[in-house]
Amino acid sequence: MPNLFADLPAKTDEELFSDLLKRPGVRIERIISTGQPSPPGHWYDQDWDEWVVLLAGSAGLVIEGKPEIVLEPGDYVFLPAHRRHRVSWTDAGSPTVWLAIHIGEPDRNPSGDSR
Amino acid sequence: MPNLFADLPAKTDEELFSDLLKRPGVRIERIISTGQPSPPGHWYDQDWDEWVVLLAGSAGLVIEGKPEIVLEPGDYVFLPAHRRHRVSWTDAGSPTVWLAIHIGEPDRNPSGDSR
Repeated sequence: MPNLFADLPAKTDEELFSDLLKRPGVRIERIISTGQPSPPGHWYDQDWDEWVVLLAGSAGLVIEGKPEIVLEPGDYVFLPAHRRHRVSWTDAGSPTVWLAIHIGEPDRNPSGDSR
Repeated sequence: MPNLFADLPAKTDEELFSDLLKRPGVRIERIISTGQPSPPGHWYDQDWDEWVVLLAGSAGLVIEGKPEIVLEPGDYVFLPAHRRHRVSWTDAGSPTVWLAIHIGEPDRNPSGDSR
Protein backbone atom coordinates (compact mmCIF):
# COMPACT_ATOMS: atom_id res chain seq x y z
CA MET A 1 0.00 0.00 0.00
CA PRO A 2 1.70 3.22 -1.08
CA ASN A 3 1.78 5.91 1.59
CA LEU A 4 2.37 9.65 1.28
CA PHE A 5 4.51 9.68 4.40
CA ALA A 6 6.65 6.64 3.64
CA ASP A 7 10.40 6.94 3.34
CA LEU A 8 10.60 10.64 4.08
CA PRO A 9 14.18 11.82 3.93
CA ALA A 10 15.52 13.77 6.90
CA LYS A 11 17.35 16.20 4.65
CA THR A 12 17.98 16.42 0.93
CA ASP A 13 19.88 18.89 -1.20
CA GLU A 14 16.85 19.60 -3.35
CA GLU A 15 13.12 19.20 -3.09
CA LEU A 16 11.80 15.80 -4.19
CA PHE A 17 9.03 15.72 -6.78
CA SER A 18 7.12 12.49 -7.47
CA ASP A 19 4.19 11.96 -9.80
CA LEU A 20 1.67 9.72 -8.07
CA LEU A 21 -0.82 9.71 -10.95
CA LYS A 22 -0.91 11.14 -14.45
CA ARG A 23 -4.05 11.24 -16.52
CA PRO A 24 -4.93 13.52 -19.42
CA GLY A 25 -5.46 16.92 -17.85
CA VAL A 26 -4.69 15.83 -14.29
CA ARG A 27 -1.42 15.18 -12.47
CA ILE A 28 -1.20 14.31 -8.78
CA GLU A 29 2.22 15.09 -7.35
CA ARG A 30 3.91 14.66 -4.00
CA ILE A 31 6.55 17.22 -3.09
CA ILE A 32 8.89 16.83 -0.14
CA SER A 33 10.77 19.88 1.09
CA THR A 34 13.38 19.81 3.83
CA GLY A 35 14.00 23.48 4.43
CA GLN A 36 14.16 24.63 0.81
CA PRO A 37 12.27 27.67 -0.39
CA SER A 38 11.56 28.22 -4.07
CA PRO A 39 14.77 29.13 -5.89
CA PRO A 40 15.74 32.72 -4.99
CA GLY A 41 13.80 35.22 -7.04
CA HIS A 42 11.80 32.49 -8.77
CA TRP A 43 8.05 32.87 -9.08
CA TYR A 44 5.91 30.00 -10.26
CA ASP A 45 3.74 31.23 -13.13
CA GLN A 46 1.86 28.27 -14.51
CA ASP A 47 -0.38 27.96 -17.55
CA TRP A 48 -2.67 25.63 -15.56
CA ASP A 49 -4.58 25.56 -12.29
CA GLU A 50 -3.12 23.95 -9.18
CA TRP A 51 -4.76 22.89 -5.93
CA VAL A 52 -2.25 22.20 -3.19
CA VAL A 53 -2.48 20.98 0.39
CA LEU A 54 0.30 20.87 2.98
CA LEU A 55 0.13 17.59 4.91
CA ALA A 56 3.19 17.61 7.17
CA GLY A 57 5.71 20.20 8.28
CA SER A 58 5.04 23.86 7.60
CA ALA A 59 5.81 26.50 4.99
CA GLY A 60 5.47 30.11 3.98
CA LEU A 61 3.63 30.81 0.75
CA VAL A 62 3.63 34.16 -0.97
CA ILE A 63 1.11 35.00 -3.64
CA GLU A 64 2.40 37.99 -5.57
CA GLY A 65 1.22 41.26 -4.10
CA LYS A 66 -0.04 39.70 -0.87
CA PRO A 67 1.44 39.08 2.57
CA GLU A 68 3.02 35.72 3.28
CA ILE A 69 0.65 32.95 4.33
CA VAL A 70 1.87 30.36 6.84
CA LEU A 71 0.68 26.86 5.97
CA GLU A 72 0.20 24.19 8.62
CA PRO A 73 -0.89 20.56 8.08
CA GLY A 74 -4.28 20.37 6.38
CA ASP A 75 -4.16 23.91 4.97
CA TYR A 76 -5.01 24.04 1.30
CA VAL A 77 -4.89 26.69 -1.42
CA PHE A 78 -6.20 26.97 -4.94
CA LEU A 79 -3.78 28.66 -7.32
CA PRO A 80 -5.45 29.55 -10.62
CA ALA A 81 -3.32 29.63 -13.75
CA HIS A 82 -0.90 32.58 -13.74
CA ARG A 83 -1.46 33.39 -10.08
CA ARG A 84 2.23 34.00 -9.44
CA HIS A 85 3.47 32.49 -6.21
CA ARG A 86 6.54 31.22 -4.42
CA VAL A 87 7.43 29.28 -1.31
CA SER A 88 9.35 31.61 1.00
CA TRP A 89 10.48 28.93 3.46
CA THR A 90 9.78 25.36 4.54
CA ASP A 91 10.28 23.72 7.92
CA ALA A 92 13.98 23.17 8.57
CA GLY A 93 13.39 20.67 11.37
CA SER A 94 11.16 18.04 9.77
CA PRO A 95 10.04 17.19 6.25
CA THR A 96 7.26 19.19 4.66
CA VAL A 97 4.92 17.07 2.55
CA TRP A 98 2.78 18.67 -0.13
CA LEU A 99 0.13 17.11 -2.31
CA ALA A 100 -0.46 19.09 -5.51
CA ILE A 101 -3.22 18.51 -8.04
CA HIS A 102 -2.31 20.03 -11.39
CA ILE A 103 -5.36 20.62 -13.57
CA GLY A 104 -5.26 21.26 -17.30
CA GLU A 105 -1.50 21.07 -17.53
CA PRO A 106 -0.20 20.53 -21.07
CA ASP A 107 1.52 17.19 -21.53
CA ARG A 108 5.19 17.97 -21.06
CA ASN A 109 6.20 14.58 -22.27
CA PRO A 110 4.32 13.57 -25.41
CA SER A 111 7.15 11.41 -26.74
CA GLY A 112 7.38 9.24 -23.66
CA ASP A 113 10.95 10.34 -22.96
CA SER A 114 11.83 11.14 -19.39
CA ARG A 115 11.93 14.85 -18.73
CA MET B 1 -7.07 29.55 5.29
CA PRO B 2 -9.29 26.51 4.74
CA ASN B 3 -8.05 23.34 6.43
CA LEU B 4 -8.94 19.71 5.77
CA PHE B 5 -9.01 18.94 9.47
CA ALA B 6 -11.04 21.94 10.61
CA ASP B 7 -14.36 21.48 12.36
CA LEU B 8 -14.33 17.70 12.35
CA PRO B 9 -17.47 16.37 13.97
CA ALA B 10 -17.09 13.78 16.74
CA LYS B 11 -20.00 11.76 15.43
CA THR B 12 -22.56 12.23 12.71
CA ASP B 13 -25.46 10.11 11.52
CA GLU B 14 -24.14 10.01 7.99
CA GLU B 15 -20.85 10.58 6.23
CA LEU B 16 -20.15 14.19 5.28
CA PHE B 17 -19.25 14.94 1.66
CA SER B 18 -17.84 18.35 0.69
CA ASP B 19 -16.63 19.50 -2.71
CA LEU B 20 -13.44 21.52 -2.24
CA LEU B 21 -12.95 22.24 -5.93
CA LYS B 22 -14.86 21.53 -9.12
CA ARG B 23 -13.37 22.04 -12.54
CA PRO B 24 -14.36 20.42 -15.83
CA GLY B 25 -13.26 16.80 -15.51
CA VAL B 26 -11.89 17.12 -11.97
CA ARG B 27 -13.59 17.23 -8.58
CA ILE B 28 -11.71 17.34 -5.28
CA GLU B 29 -13.84 16.08 -2.40
CA ARG B 30 -13.39 15.74 1.34
CA ILE B 31 -15.25 12.91 3.02
CA ILE B 32 -15.58 12.57 6.77
CA SER B 33 -16.65 9.24 8.20
CA THR B 34 -17.33 8.61 11.87
CA GLY B 35 -17.73 4.86 11.97
CA GLN B 36 -19.92 4.43 8.89
CA PRO B 37 -19.19 1.79 6.29
CA SER B 38 -20.62 2.04 2.80
CA PRO B 39 -24.35 1.30 2.90
CA PRO B 40 -24.89 -2.46 3.44
CA GLY B 41 -24.51 -4.37 0.22
CA HIS B 42 -23.64 -1.24 -1.73
CA TRP B 43 -20.69 -1.32 -4.12
CA TYR B 44 -19.39 1.84 -5.69
CA ASP B 45 -19.22 1.31 -9.44
CA GLN B 46 -18.23 4.60 -11.01
CA ASP B 47 -18.00 5.64 -14.64
CA TRP B 48 -14.87 7.65 -13.83
CA ASP B 49 -11.46 7.20 -12.20
CA GLU B 50 -10.88 8.07 -8.55
CA TRP B 51 -7.68 8.57 -6.60
CA VAL B 52 -8.25 8.57 -2.86
CA VAL B 53 -6.03 9.08 0.18
CA LEU B 54 -6.92 8.52 3.82
CA LEU B 55 -5.53 11.37 5.94
CA ALA B 56 -6.86 10.72 9.45
CA GLY B 57 -8.53 7.81 11.22
CA SER B 58 -8.54 4.40 9.58
CA ALA B 59 -10.77 2.29 7.36
CA GLY B 60 -11.25 -1.03 5.65
CA LEU B 61 -11.53 -0.97 1.87
CA VAL B 62 -12.67 -3.91 -0.18
CA ILE B 63 -12.06 -4.07 -3.90
CA GLU B 64 -14.36 -6.70 -5.36
CA GLY B 65 -12.77 -10.10 -5.45
CA LYS B 66 -9.86 -9.15 -3.20
CA PRO B 67 -9.19 -9.29 0.53
CA GLU B 68 -9.92 -6.24 2.64
CA ILE B 69 -7.20 -3.57 2.74
CA VAL B 70 -6.69 -1.63 5.96
CA LEU B 71 -5.96 2.04 5.29
CA GLU B 72 -3.96 4.17 7.71
CA PRO B 73 -3.13 7.89 7.39
CA GLY B 74 -1.22 8.60 4.20
CA ASP B 75 -2.29 5.41 2.42
CA TYR B 76 -3.61 6.06 -1.08
CA VAL B 77 -5.35 3.99 -3.73
CA PHE B 78 -6.20 4.48 -7.38
CA LEU B 79 -9.61 3.15 -8.32
CA PRO B 80 -10.07 3.02 -12.09
CA ALA B 81 -13.57 3.41 -13.50
CA HIS B 82 -15.77 0.40 -12.77
CA ARG B 83 -13.36 -1.08 -10.23
CA ARG B 84 -16.12 -2.02 -7.81
CA HIS B 85 -15.29 -1.22 -4.20
CA ARG B 86 -16.80 -0.53 -0.81
CA VAL B 87 -15.74 0.70 2.59
CA SER B 88 -16.23 -2.14 5.06
CA TRP B 89 -15.66 -0.07 8.20
CA THR B 90 -14.27 3.25 9.41
CA ASP B 91 -12.73 4.15 12.74
CA ALA B 92 -15.42 4.34 15.42
CA GLY B 93 -13.25 6.29 17.85
CA SER B 94 -12.13 9.30 15.85
CA PRO B 95 -13.07 10.90 12.54
CA THR B 96 -11.73 9.42 9.33
CA VAL B 97 -10.81 12.05 6.75
CA TRP B 98 -10.56 11.13 3.07
CA LEU B 99 -9.46 13.24 0.16
CA ALA B 100 -10.83 11.97 -3.15
CA ILE B 101 -9.87 13.20 -6.60
CA HIS B 102 -12.55 12.31 -9.14
CA ILE B 103 -11.22 12.34 -12.70
CA GLY B 104 -13.38 12.45 -15.80
CA GLU B 105 -16.64 12.44 -13.90
CA PRO B 106 -19.63 13.58 -15.94
CA ASP B 107 -21.13 16.83 -14.71
CA ARG B 108 -23.98 15.72 -12.48
CA ASN B 109 -25.28 19.18 -12.17
CA PRO B 110 -25.45 20.95 -15.51
CA SER B 111 -28.45 23.06 -14.50
CA GLY B 112 -26.82 24.50 -11.42
CA ASP B 113 -29.40 22.95 -9.10
CA SER B 114 -28.16 21.30 -5.95
CA ARG B 115 -28.11 17.54 -6.14
